[in-house]
Amino acid sequence: MLAVFGDETLVRAALDFEAALARASAAEGLIAPEAAQVIAQACADIPIDVAALADEAAHAGTLALPLVRRLRERIAARNPDVADLVHRGATSQDLADTALMLQAKAGSALIVSEAGAVADLLAGLAEAHAETPMLGRTLLQAAAPITFGLRAAGWLLGVDAARRRFEREAADALRLQLGGAVGTLAGLSPAVVERMARDLGLEPASLPWHSRRDGVAGTATALAILIGAAGKVARDISLMAQNELAEAFEPRTPGRGGSSAMPHKRNPTGCQIVLSAAIRAPALASAILSGLPQEHERGLGGWQAEAPALATLFELADGALGALREVLDGLEIDAAAMRRNLRAADVGDDAGHAVALAQRALAEYRRRG
Amino acid sequence: MLAVFGDETLVRAALDFEAALARASAAEGLIAPEAAQVIAQACADIPIDVAALADEAAHAGTLALPLVRRLRERIAARNPDVADLVHRGATSQDLADTALMLQAKAGSALIVSEAGAVADLLAGLAEAHAETPMLGRTLLQAAAPITFGLRAAGWLLGVDAARRRFEREAADALRLQLGGAVGTLAGLSPAVVERMARDLGLEPASLPWHSRRDGVAGTATALAILIGAAGKVARDISLMAQNELAEAFEPRTPGRGGSSAMPHKRNPTGCQIVLSAAIRAPALASAILSGLPQEHERGLGGWQAEAPALATLFELADGALGALREVLDGLEIDAAAMRRNLRAADVGDDAGHAVALAQRALAEYRRRG
Amino acid sequence: MLAVFGDETLVRAALDFEAALARASAAEGLIAPEAAQVIAQACADIPIDVAALADEAAHAGTLALPLVRRLRERIAARNPDVADLVHRGATSQDLADTALMLQAKAGSALIVSEAGAVADLLAGLAEAHAETPMLGRTLLQAAAPITFGLRAAGWLLGVDAARRRFEREAADALRLQLGGAVGTLAGLSPAVVERMARDLGLEPASLPWHSRRDGVAGTATALAILIGAAGKVARDISLMAQNELAEAFEPRTPGRGGSSAMPHKRNPTGCQIVLSAAIRAPALASAILSGLPQEHERGLGGWQAEAPALATLFELADGALGALREVLDGLEIDAAAMRRNLRAADVGDDAGHAVALAQRALAEYRRRG
Amino acid sequence: MLAVFGDETLVRAALDFEAALARASAAEGLIAPEAAQVIAQACADIPIDVAALADEAAHAGTLALPLVRRLRERIAARNPDVADLVHRGATSQDLADTALMLQAKAGSALIVSEAGAVADLLAGLAEAHAETPMLGRTLLQAAAPITFGLRAAGWLLGVDAARRRFEREAADALRLQLGGAVGTLAGLSPAVVERMARDLGLEPASLPWHSRRDGVAGTATALAILIGAAGKVARDISLMAQNELAEAFEPRTPGRGGSSAMPHKRNPTGCQIVLSAAIRAPALASAILSGLPQEHERGLGGWQAEAPALATLFELADGALGALREVLDGLEIDAAAMRRNLRAADVGDDAGHAVALAQRALAEYRRRG
Repeated sequence: MLAVFGDETLVRAALDFEAALARASAAEGLIAPEAAQVIAQACADIPIDVAALADEAAHAGTLALPLVRRLRERIAARNPDVADLVHRGATSQDLADTALMLQAKAGSALIVSEAGAVADLLAGLAEAHAETPMLGRTLLQAAAPITFGLRAAGWLLGVDAARRRFEREAADALRLQLGGAVGTLAGLSPAVVERMARDLGLEPASLPWHSRRDGVAGTATALAILIGAAGKVARDISLMAQNELAEAFEPRTPGRGGSSAMPHKRNPTGCQIVLSAAIRAPALASAILSGLPQEHERGLGGWQAEAPALATLFELADGALGALREVLDGLEIDAAAMRRNLRAADVGDDAGHAVALAQRALAEYRRRG
Repeated sequence: MLAVFGDETLVRAALDFEAALARASAAEGLIAPEAAQVIAQACADIPIDVAALADEAAHAGTLALPLVRRLRERIAARNPDVADLVHRGATSQDLADTALMLQAKAGSALIVSEAGAVADLLAGLAEAHAETPMLGRTLLQAAAPITFGLRAAGWLLGVDAARRRFEREAADALRLQLGGAVGTLAGLSPAVVERMARDLGLEPASLPWHSRRDGVAGTATALAILIGAAGKVARDISLMAQNELAEAFEPRTPGRGGSSAMPHKRNPTGCQIVLSAAIRAPALASAILSGLPQEHERGLGGWQAEAPALATLFELADGALGALREVLDGLEIDAAAMRRNLRAADVGDDAGHAVALAQRALAEYRRRG
Repeated sequence: MLAVFGDETLVRAALDFEAALARASAAEGLIAPEAAQVIAQACADIPIDVAALADEAAHAGTLALPLVRRLRERIAARNPDVADLVHRGATSQDLADTALMLQAKAGSALIVSEAGAVADLLAGLAEAHAETPMLGRTLLQAAAPITFGLRAAGWLLGVDAARRRFEREAADALRLQLGGAVGTLAGLSPAVVERMARDLGLEPASLPWHSRRDGVAGTATALAILIGAAGKVARDISLMAQNELAEAFEPRTPGRGGSSAMPHKRNPTGCQIVLSAAIRAPALASAILSGLPQEHERGLGGWQAEAPALATLFELADGALGALREVLDGLEIDAAAMRRNLRAADVGDDAGHAVALAQRALAEYRRRG
Repeated sequence: MLAVFGDETLVRAALDFEAALARASAAEGLIAPEAAQVIAQACADIPIDVAALADEAAHAGTLALPLVRRLRERIAARNPDVADLVHRGATSQDLADTALMLQAKAGSALIVSEAGAVADLLAGLAEAHAETPMLGRTLLQAAAPITFGLRAAGWLLGVDAARRRFEREAADALRLQLGGAVGTLAGLSPAVVERMARDLGLEPASLPWHSRRDGVAGTATALAILIGAAGKVARDISLMAQNELAEAFEPRTPGRGGSSAMPHKRNPTGCQIVLSAAIRAPALASAILSGLPQEHERGLGGWQAEAPALATLFELADGALGALREVLDGLEIDAAAMRRNLRAADVGDDAGHAVALAQRALAEYRRRG
């Protein structure tokens, strides 16, 4: 995920934008096919010093200016009249938003896959422990018997619902941005949008969305909810791993979970990664929500604040789900300790209702595919 | 909306919960039909000192304890053996969450209706000003010609998309909460859940969601996005209303928009209400996201933090949409000023592309119904 | 605290503002002493329908307009030429900000007192349990021996530092707002500011701070940090109260801590109140921080978003500290359980270092007074 | 600032921690002076593959484990009995927190210097334009005359107050962390703390602050307020730069402010950087506030969430202040346009009060030094 949102990938996505724009413009007769070929070729083989470009982009406040300049300079040497056709009709934000969406698309695939793997592991736990009794706890106090399968089924529904929300939001948001200076498609056309979107594997948008950011916000909040669903699992596992409960343990992983002061310790480091992400994510989503009331056709400050926050949300989600997958993959459950704690609480031991409920939830999950 | 989330309505919803629980329990043979009738009758006619009850609930940390005690005392006088059947099988959070969902359902209807009214007004503006040229502005600078109709169409798509997201999230979240102490339905059954949900006009949940709060979080973030979409419109109108631009003005409303120091002023007070809501909403959504990793079967602190934040979000959304509706309903557009500003910027005046684009967006909105 | 930030108190503070303005204006020769007396008298005895006024203020977007109108109407009957002198030179925000500061001043006194009481209770615990060994825990795992006194001393330093920061920030922020329409003191003077501030018990400001809100933001974040310091204590107590640890218990309080489903339970309801506040507070502070970049002389939306967030922060801080005080006041410590858990962890039992450290911290606290 | 919070600097700070610990331990007779010298020497000349170390640290959940292992391996070859003395008495978080404080100290110096430069530029503007009349605006509407000097003086007081708060908070927070596994200084002593703090140029803490994070939170919120104070200036300049107002313009900077679609445009790109930071900062502060209620002696997830958020806040503050400094350094003020807009608003032109007020504020700033 770090690679997906790294500078290399960003520059690659930006070059893909320019190449696709040229091809679509040529297909609609706005520029000559030969010009499009020259531009696409330049996008394919221009050598880019990514660090230098990033510095210039930070100074310029936009990636498009220095990148387009480089492309034009490269082309101008042999095709001086083509140079000016690079980026024709587009504006900086078209490039920035489309590149972000291409990164988000690659990131979304990773997230959906990780979340699916986590859900499958949770389903496995729910099934394996369908009848393992344990103490149900409320307000951090002993309450009444449940099964560990029921708890795992609850985790599963939470992660699965959050995964489906994220897929829905991402599908809605992953759209090409192309509108030109003020979003009128002046010098372009809806047909260019359609072609270019197909070329890049994004959906077209019925209007440019330069200052209409609900899609980005929806994706960001869905990521935060997904991280929170993972956080719920990590919260519970870290509590169950307390020495006095000793019901569940993260797998021993070489190089993880040790303590520099106490070599005997076995820290819930995977849970720590997830919980740390769950503390950071809500605020990042909030920053993106704060930027929604953007000015006029393209705002000042609001959308520029989004990309780093969104990238961090993708990275946190990926890190949290990956850490949780490792935790669940080798999770050690001590069913005897669960029984012991249940008996000690003296709240009865009939968890029959829990068994049936968990089965129902599992069946619902399996049915959904 | 203040009434929907007021204490009176909350107590009413809580009493509806108890009555529906009794009826569903009787229908499933868990208590006698006569007992259910006694309980439902008590819920219907018990006199409640709402302020005193609120104080006791705040002290107890839950509404259920003092309310159930009152119901039992009332019933015990004439039906001592029925008293204990009140709230049977349920837990405090069943009542609290279901009551919140009943309030949210009433609130959602108001929001959807207000958002629809705002969208219709925006569609009207987009249509009426389809060909009104104005200066498109980016990064707060003069950029290129658009039409006011295109801008209004963009506003429309933003509000409409946010309204549809909210409807989807609310439909998903508005579920009965019923699980008993640890969510196992011990002493109850899925059939009770089905009946009770139908009775109260909520959807049933496949598992109790005591510590799985993605539905609440999805509703909260959808409200924040909707408020942000309204904020985008208010931002633009307040900028267009600046004296030096003078392109749009809020309607004169008696008792609003005046200044205690400068009687000649005409303040964009409606926009102020919307923008203020747009500053507050992201943080409220963030608080709800922060509470997601809740402990065990029912957490400590996390879900108790949700209700006030969610209620405020509903109130802010309602207030913002209502204020925006009033602003749009009588919005004065000065097309001559728009033309003057466009000419002064010397960026050409061909906004032809904008006209067609706005029509497309409008058609999409109308098609969707 | 609800009363301090209630509508009644707000109206009272607003009337105090108008009376003090009249008196100071008269003392500086800007209006006649008799006029000031008439205005002050009207402020003292005008009957106000607070609910109706609140509605009008909400509609107007400001309290000043309907309140000043009422005052003028009341005075006009017998002193028509004085009526216009009400609010002379001031603007709506002067009244709104000053009233908020008067409320904040009353609120601050409550907070400082509650935080002091909590600190004293913590100091008492640190002293009483200076030598009570317990298991130190890190990353939710058994680590090495400490004393409960050391832990309590850490709690103490946290609450005490947060209390001192809050006092410092509040002392800095609690300033009179008086600037007139655009903050130039046109028609007024710095001498009026000095007099009026003295009259109201606030500090004067060297410039009006209509759109310079760092004082409000500093107060808000200091409250959030104080709530977080209380949250740290509540987090620990709720973990120590887990049945399997059983080291500490909230006092039994009639009407609190019970469970509607499980009468035997003893829930950490006081901790719940604190932890719930600690989830809500950061977001409220964030909303106030988001409003800082306000427009021109007096902004649109930003400052209007502050008052409800600040009031809620005061209420949450008061509620959290009050709940924590009750928890600490009757906190039951089971030193035998602490020893048992320590032995079971098999990490040695020498906590000698902890004793001396805690004494040092206590001495530091006592020295500071 | 990126370098200050970069991985190289972090590793350097961590090595400084280990060397200082060894020296202080030797000075207090806990280890042999020769051993300390060997350790310090290893810290000085060990070659570190920073990228590989960062990967291992991310996997381990802590930097200390892989770094200490490397040090021990290096030393073990020639001084096998010294190897175990590396990191003696300390815990991972001692190293992590102290390294963060060393980075924060370097970062704070940059911030204070940048903020001071911005304040001086603002003071210059306030002085140069003490008598330049302009239109004061409230709620984004023309209100009454002020001077540009008064507005600049307001900006100045805001930035200066925020700078002083930040200095105070940083001075309070920049403390050595040293406590060992559970913060008891077992195997160490307060004297080691004193020595080591002096060695590293940090203040000692009266108790280890592993799970008492008010200092970090105070620093973070002070940074957010400082960014907000810069954001207020940027908001105003970007509004004054609107073509229809044309009162102020960012300097032309090569490679900045251009538009990829409209070469004639002059975008307020410096303001954009500041405003974007002002949208992101509140949420980052909120994440740190959310982590305050940490568990027991050292928490799980809360403090691990702090470092990236704090680093980003420092970077945003530095970026925002630096961008604002460039904007102010060459800010073009069009006094004639200011006069024209004032006249057009027809609100009079007497700004005499403003002149005196601004002088007062300036004098206050100069007096403070």
